[in-house]
Amino acid sequence: MNPEESIGRTHWAIAEGYIPEKSHGPEPEMTSHETACLLNAGEREAHVEITVFFADREPVGPYRVTVPPRRTRHVRFNELDDPAPVPRGADYASVIVSDVPIVVQHTRLDSRQAENALLTTIAYPASP
Amino acid sequence: MNPEESIGRTHWAIAEGYIPEKSHGPEPEMTSHETACLLNAGEREAHVEITVFFADREPVGPYRVTVPPRRTRHVRFNELDDPAPVPRGADYASVIVSDVPIVVQHTRLDSRQAENALLTTIAYPASP
Amino acid sequence: MNPEESIGRTHWAIAEGYIPEKSHGPEPEMTSHETACLLNAGEREAHVEITVFFADREPVGPYRVTVPPRRTRHVRFNELDDPAPVPRGADYASVIVSDVPIVVQHTRLDSRQAENALLTTIAYPASP
Amino acid sequence: MNPEESIGRTHWAIAEGYIPEKSHGPEPEMTSHETACLLNAGEREAHVEITVFFADREPVGPYRVTVPPRRTRHVRFNELDDPAPVPRGADYASVIVSDVPIVVQHTRLDSRQAENALLTTIAYPASP
Repeated sequence: MNPEESIGRTHWAIAEGYIPEKSHGPEPEMTSHETACLLNAGEREAHVEITVFFADREPVGPYRVTVPPRRTRHVRFNELDDPAPVPRGADYASVIVSDVPIVVQHTRLDSRQAENALLTTIAYPASP
Repeated sequence: MNPEESIGRTHWAIAEGYIPEKSHGPEPEMTSHETACLLNAGEREAHVEITVFFADREPVGPYRVTVPPRRTRHVRFNELDDPAPVPRGADYASVIVSDVPIVVQHTRLDSRQAENALLTTIAYPASP
Repeated sequence: MNPEESIGRTHWAIAEGYIPEKSHGPEPEMTSHETACLLNAGEREAHVEITVFFADREPVGPYRVTVPPRRTRHVRFNELDDPAPVPRGADYASVIVSDVPIVVQHTRLDSRQAENALLTTIAYPASP
Repeated sequence: MNPEESIGRTHWAIAEGYIPEKSHGPEPEMTSHETACLLNAGEREAHVEITVFFADREPVGPYRVTVPPRRTRHVRFNELDDPAPVPRGADYASVIVSDVPIVVQHTRLDSRQAENALLTTIAYPASP
């Protein structure tokens, strides 16, 4: 019953991705955004690489993110900019690879219209 | 740690399906729609067959979709028309079969009322 | 690549359950409701038993539902009434057991406020 | 076909967590909240420990929750206060460990804007 033992997988995938071009409400809280929530419940630092796939061109990445041991990091795709920003208003998908087990959950806040909408799902665990 | 290795499954299912008959907001962005987001992170082209199931009649399909290697394709059920359009305002479900591993995520944007609502889930991976 | 082969599991669970007491908009389409979407992609009729669990009293059920072969049935918890209606405004959960493999997805439409909200998830597959 | 047999897992994770600081509508029903819905379909009482992880400090917990046999308990993170309240407006994640199998589903109601938004997902089953 040790909750801090290493849990999760090393490979994850999110097939949906779309950052709306418009937003309503105060920034940054209500800005339309997509997030990959990363949980590293283990005792070793997680070195995470995110690759972004598109409909009509080669994948871009890896985007590199570090999650310290016993920490969560909610990565906004909106804020990824190295090697290149993620385009707005375009379909994408992502593969997330870590050197230690993590848990990944996908969330979007869409504030294109006056009231916000939300979606979430645990990502697809692609490795055992 | 090669994110482009082949990940996913070949058989997927989505038990929920419903394309609202009404929409608010500019087309096509805010049109009520249902999407199957397909990610082919591998090196071989994916030949995908979607079969649509109904409450009161035989399944329709297969709808054939191709996803190039290292690409994502967000398929709107609204736009499927061969062998037949998916009816609006009716319950359906779908089974998605690919010849190479892919990842499938289901999303709906519902703009029947003035403000849009969203839902998503990773589809059910029906094969190992 | 036969999409009509038997796919899914026989035991499923949905831990969330809540039918809002209020609704806005035309009935029955916009009535607040919770749905268990059942997909029977196989060749044999599915005999499904739903048991509803509560916070403070014994489970109620089974509610019996039949899904013909190659059909989907989107069961509204609102409409279950034998052996007893599901109470509004109260937390519940459900276990769904079928004699043949099916796929189960959980959806809620919440129209308590003027604009509707949606949630969905593939249910938890409790059997292999 | 005994729905009350012990189903689920003992270890679960939710990588997303965020309790909005603002709400619209009548309390407590429409207060912005995050919930971990716990289903104990088995015959033995479940002793559950929730550990909450943050972006920038050590985890807090365990929060202890008991779920009687054949009951569901929808735990609002807003109401957890021992050993400490969960901060509003901050990213978190959670690991949920039970001594008997349970099923865990994550839900948020966000009423920061005039109309509420909802999200849900079955949590990540971290143990077999």
